[in-house]
Amino acid sequence: MTHDERMQQVDQYIDDHLQDFLNDLAELCSYPTVAAQNQAIDETADFTAKLLEKYGFNARVMPSTGNPMVYGELAGSSDKTVLCYNHYDVQPAEPLELWDSPPWEATERDGKLYARGVVDDKGHIVCRLAAIAALNAVYGEVPCSVKMLIEGEEEIGSMSMEPFIEQHRDMLAGADGCLWEFGGVDFEDRPEIVLGMRGDVYVELRAKTISHDAHSGLGGSIFPNAAWRLTWALSTLKDQNERIQIPGWYDDVREPTEAEMELLRNLPRSDEALKKSFGLNSFLKNVDGVEMLRQQLFEPTCTIAGIGSGYQGPGSKTVLPAEAMAKIDFRIVPDQEPDDLVAKLRKHLADQGFDDIEVIQHNGSRAARVDPNSPFVQTVIETAREVYGKEPVVSPTSGGSGPMDPFVRLLNVPISNVGIGYSNTLVHSPNENMRIADFVKGVKQTARVMARTGG
Amino acid sequence: MTHDERMQQVDQYIDDHLQDFLNDLAELCSYPTVAAQNQAIDETADFTAKLLEKYGFNARVMPSTGNPMVYGELAGSSDKTVLCYNHYDVQPAEPLELWDSPPWEATERDGKLYARGVVDDKGHIVCRLAAIAALNAVYGEVPCSVKMLIEGEEEIGSMSMEPFIEQHRDMLAGADGCLWEFGGVDFEDRPEIVLGMRGDVYVELRAKTISHDAHSGLGGSIFPNAAWRLTWALSTLKDQNERIQIPGWYDDVREPTEAEMELLRNLPRSDEALKKSFGLNSFLKNVDGVEMLRQQLFEPTCTIAGIGSGYQGPGSKTVLPAEAMAKIDFRIVPDQEPDDLVAKLRKHLADQGFDDIEVIQHNGSRAARVDPNSPFVQTVIETAREVYGKEPVVSPTSGGSGPMDPFVRLLNVPISNVGIGYSNTLVHSPNENMRIADFVKGVKQTARVMARTGG
Repeated sequence: MTHDERMQQVDQYIDDHLQDFLNDLAELCSYPTVAAQNQAIDETADFTAKLLEKYGFNARVMPSTGNPMVYGELAGSSDKTVLCYNHYDVQPAEPLELWDSPPWEATERDGKLYARGVVDDKGHIVCRLAAIAALNAVYGEVPCSVKMLIEGEEEIGSMSMEPFIEQHRDMLAGADGCLWEFGGVDFEDRPEIVLGMRGDVYVELRAKTISHDAHSGLGGSIFPNAAWRLTWALSTLKDQNERIQIPGWYDDVREPTEAEMELLRNLPRSDEALKKSFGLNSFLKNVDGVEMLRQQLFEPTCTIAGIGSGYQGPGSKTVLPAEAMAKIDFRIVPDQEPDDLVAKLRKHLADQGFDDIEVIQHNGSRAARVDPNSPFVQTVIETAREVYGKEPVVSPTSGGSGPMDPFVRLLNVPISNVGIGYSNTLVHSPNENMRIADFVKGVKQTARVMARTGG
Repeated sequence: MTHDERMQQVDQYIDDHLQDFLNDLAELCSYPTVAAQNQAIDETADFTAKLLEKYGFNARVMPSTGNPMVYGELAGSSDKTVLCYNHYDVQPAEPLELWDSPPWEATERDGKLYARGVVDDKGHIVCRLAAIAALNAVYGEVPCSVKMLIEGEEEIGSMSMEPFIEQHRDMLAGADGCLWEFGGVDFEDRPEIVLGMRGDVYVELRAKTISHDAHSGLGGSIFPNAAWRLTWALSTLKDQNERIQIPGWYDDVREPTEAEMELLRNLPRSDEALKKSFGLNSFLKNVDGVEMLRQQLFEPTCTIAGIGSGYQGPGSKTVLPAEAMAKIDFRIVPDQEPDDLVAKLRKHLADQGFDDIEVIQHNGSRAARVDPNSPFVQTVIETAREVYGKEPVVSPTSGGSGPMDPFVRLLNVPISNVGIGYSNTLVHSPNENMRIADFVKGVKQTARVMARTGG
């Protein structure tokens, strides 16, 4: 049989067994694995390890400095190895009332499967497993060895990934390529490939001014108000021109290279679709085209992800709040260092007279970049072309963040991505969903990446 | 029988029937009458009217422009009339987890009764009724006529009170004095009498920037963030020196008169007790003594009573919020006008570039002042001295707000207060409570005010 004939059989197997894969995915999605709420972690890790064994892996749950890792190895017919990085934890499902079907019950409607985690990232776990099932069926064994490393803290910052990789460097090293946990197609169904990620520093600011809430008629002009303290402190962090005002924040920012700007210039324009999707007339600072992309991908950000204090119910309550909190998500770029930035934030708050504001760091990860010329990246680009029949869109970095830095820096493995998402996947929103046709393509491309890497 | 002998009998009756009064209060408190949440309004109004009838009133539930009013009349043995103003609605009970016993189930512990509304203001309703029961028992009939006007929107701004008084001016006019709905003793158990109230303008600010929440990795530097818009807008309202920055806000402020400042100078110092109660080292701007009181009672305030946006759960969620809201409580002083102030707020926001921020007005009331030399006020001061055995504390105004202005301006009735609260009553907080001994004193003083007004 030629490679192409075998691939036809692989595709046929995938089409024929699709419902089995989706059933496994539905079961995996039934676990409400919200890392931020420390929910269903061990149960999901155990189930994920069992799922890997069902697909032929030698799998186990391994301790880490945080939530357990699921690790599996499957020996292939060549000395080549593909490492898959995924995560079994998901985003919170709130606000629950905006879901059209229950978030923890995978529901099929109009060719789509809806559930929290159905794409991010449980769908990608099952995508890798489905490809392996098809290769096993057609080839008798998988053409390359596969290692799967599945963490349980991606949505809260992957704090345990770097120490885990350091501790288990021998076990994880030597792969010929690493399939990253995400991906999919853009607004025009072109497969998207990213060559890096931003880093992320996520902190919570807390103000506490009095021992308990007061009547606003009693304390309005004599008691310090936690909501006001926090509002004033926040307003010093970023000006209305979106410039972060913390001294030294931009000191280490590496400007985009000419090669990166060239990739930006080659990216298709999705401005109008993106605006339409979010009901916007214009982007911040009225940017568009390449400048929009540069701003989106190469500018450090300071996003208030949440803020809460006092009475938030209907109508009015005349209360002066004792406590207030804000969650802030800073996206960072090469070569900013999380620890340095948090120190600068603390110093800034103290210098501005806000040393009463407590700073709690939830996570910090560095940005990462991958060499676009590695054979593994080229394999992913070529197989994407083959499966999707479209030229893939190659971006110098994702706007998102993840633990790519320790893989690049400690394992020195080339990284690329094959995915199942699309432009309306709503990964961190209510009604997260996957088009089943995208899942099928993702499985088919994954199988091709493994077959080609095996030789 | 002399007046003193009769009063001894009245006091005895009150002591003997205390448990009956407390049972009525407990039943009234079992209704979760949260006006802000439009909860149990009609049921409570009906029950309150029945309660008035039980104590001899001719009572009815009357429509208003908002929640119904409960109105009752009881004919006395003289041509004198006392009007009682109260409210059957209460503050929200949230945060529920901070209550030591259920908020809608009056619970007695250590000589105190705990429930939402047990003091504010259901306790005061029953206090008036208990006094009437005692007078009826001892005198055969009450020495003066009594009118009770009990509204259901005090905690959300008494929006219907002014039009109701205008519409029913004939029914309500001609009273010799009005007993206001609150009061009690201070840190050293001295009865407190107030000769006015601040006004209140309560608004909600809302920002909406995109059609739905976005992933912060996607939109952090290209999408407008509702939480940032609101934070920036709020930070323009008041500076860190507590000065409201809305142009013209202080234009109509009437400075305290020498007579008012004299009352302030005669007030006992509660600085240290107040600080201790709220865990404070100092008040805002480090004021104390008379200056603290001037700042507390005569300065317009701008209190953030609540703020909410995005993810407020545990840990981190990388979301860029589409919506944000803040509730702002402005206390106002004579002669500021609510409508004028809201117009100034709107103009300020527009001038600062925040015309995208929606302003929703929940209520607006003017400040009020009472003539301290009226006979009714003197009666209240003298009976307080008699019952409490201490010199009452007379303040030119409460820091709180209420619908006193239409009573003063439209009915021209002298107003004073007899109450059952104390320094740790926690009226708008979890564990609202009443010392039963304070209730007894409040009932006894109320009976004396009615007896003396009757002649």
